Amino acid sequence: MTGNLDFAGALARVRPHAWRTPIVPLDLPDAPPAFMKLESLQHTGSFKVRGAANRLHKLSAGARKAGVITASSGNHGRAVAVVAARLDVSATICVPDWVDPSKLRGIRATGARVVMAGPSYDEAEERAAAMAESAGMSLVHAFDDRDVIEGQGTLGVELARQVPDVEEVILPLSGGGLAAGVGLALRDRDIRLVAVSARRACVMFRSLEQGGPIELPDEETIASALSGGIGLENRLTFALCRSVISEHVVVDEGDIRAAVARAFHEHRLVVEGGGAVGLAALWSGHYRPKGPVAVIASGGNVDRSLLKNLVSGG
Amino acid sequence: MTGNLDFAGALARVRPHAWRTPIVPLDLPDAPPAFMKLESLQHTGSFKVRGAANRLHKLSAGARKAGVITASSGNHGRAVAVVAARLDVSATICVPDWVDPSKLRGIRATGARVVMAGPSYDEAEERAAAMAESAGMSLVHAFDDRDVIEGQGTLGVELARQVPDVEEVILPLSGGGLAAGVGLALRDRDIRLVAVSARRACVMFRSLEQGGPIELPDEETIASALSGGIGLENRLTFALCRSVISEHVVVDEGDIRAAVARAFHEHRLVVEGGGAVGLAALWSGHYRPKGPVAVIASGGNVDRSLLKNLVSGG
Repeated sequence: MTGNLDFAGALARVRPHAWRTPIVPLDLPDAPPAFMKLESLQHTGSFKVRGAANRLHKLSAGARKAGVITASSGNHGRAVAVVAARLDVSATICVPDWVDPSKLRGIRATGARVVMAGPSYDEAEERAAAMAESAGMSLVHAFDDRDVIEGQGTLGVELARQVPDVEEVILPLSGGGLAAGVGLALRDRDIRLVAVSARRACVMFRSLEQGGPIELPDEETIASALSGGIGLENRLTFALCRSVISEHVVVDEGDIRAAVARAFHEHRLVVEGGGAVGLAALWSGHYRPKGPVAVIASGGNVDRSLLKNLVSGG
Repeated sequence: MTGNLDFAGALARVRPHAWRTPIVPLDLPDAPPAFMKLESLQHTGSFKVRGAANRLHKLSAGARKAGVITASSGNHGRAVAVVAARLDVSATICVPDWVDPSKLRGIRATGARVVMAGPSYDEAEERAAAMAESAGMSLVHAFDDRDVIEGQGTLGVELARQVPDVEEVILPLSGGGLAAGVGLALRDRDIRLVAVSARRACVMFRSLEQGGPIELPDEETIASALSGGIGLENRLTFALCRSVISEHVVVDEGDIRAAVARAFHEHRLVVEGGGAVGLAALWSGHYRPKGPVAVIASGGNVDRSLLKNLVSGG
């Protein structure tokens, strides 16, 4: 379905834009060794820059000239905008009205054109697809795209080098681009891939339960980076997630909020809600690792009002 | 003066308490490659745990039984308290009255005994020395101690392995334990050691200027971790700093405050004032690197009121 993905090549394409994020130990009582991969410190603030860089580097000269367009709840759009600006490609980012203000500022700072597309992520996607068609721009899908998946997989390649004896990888699940990429990159190793969904943003999880892509309304969540549908016409990530994910965990708003606060106060790490669901699964006790485990803290673009609450809170 | 320090042995002694902190790139315009070493993410929140661990591990069984005492503006005391608790050694920490409340909480959480020793760091030192004498406890000096210097040097050993082509190391200067340790650990390599003092906590800098240890009154500073004298009877670090430091930079409160804020907003890093003086030297333009450079972000124990300001500020 995806043919042979070239993760080594992707790593070379991605490297000028996305660096090898650090691994730090995580003390879990009565548990196997655990590590965090701090993708929250990544350039642009999330892993999304990997997929964006790989996708944009593979565009033809003509396609680069015509520009790119994408739909995003924030992190992917920012990543596309940043990489496009560096490659001198014009970028249009369609966002839902509830986009996080700090992410919107990050996008606008690149000079990209922003389209506020309406109250739902799916409307942003429809708008991006229509504009791509009419204006001849390349649509850079946030997850359901071979090159984007290949780019996200570079995170798995790095992780395997950094923690050679890792047996479990815990990562956030939304559209499935990260899970598919990391899962495929680590396919030849004996690793359990644990995908964590936020209860209020779990379309992929429910779709996998039902046996086919479904739609759900967007709900407000602290893990807004995970919001949005997977597309009833999903081409790649639904099937790939079915194939590579070993175990699913669903975490609640309170679990996520507690994980964001704990990462901040105990570890001096700024991790956004969507990036903290893996930590939430571990710290809430909803998931208990059976062997050496790495959890991906995947994004750090926390809105200032949430930061204020965190600092004032406890 | 220090004989042959055994940094490899120290690394083995220190490792159970202090992990290899990550290196992340730092984009400086029109400058050589630059990296940050995130010692701010270290166990106990600062590099001080290295020296404390090395010192306490070298104590005899009898000395361990008698307990340890130290004077500290916070980070060293917390490090000693944490390591002592792990080794089942009783610890007494003498602090000046202006100790940062978050550091004090960290010390108290270990069960260590805390002595509020008066309005200055030097009074805390005098109290610790007197109590050590009268109660037969081992005095664990925060910097002017062979084993502490050897422990801090492990940071240099790590750094050289992580960034083999580094030519300059920028680090904070206070009592000189870190500078002496890192300088000695890297003595056989052709590295420029750049020591950065806060203008309101620059006793070592002024002493080196004057050619001998001097005393200065404590001043209030955002870099409170760097406050305190070097001792008129300084035994080791004054002479070692004179020998290993290639260049000095002094930064102002505004430079430091801006660096703490920039580390937080641009890099999602919580770095305390004293830990951020190296970044302040670079970002303010007071120091311009001539070759590949690593700057040590040495501590992350930021008080909550400062965090609130940062988040609300801009």
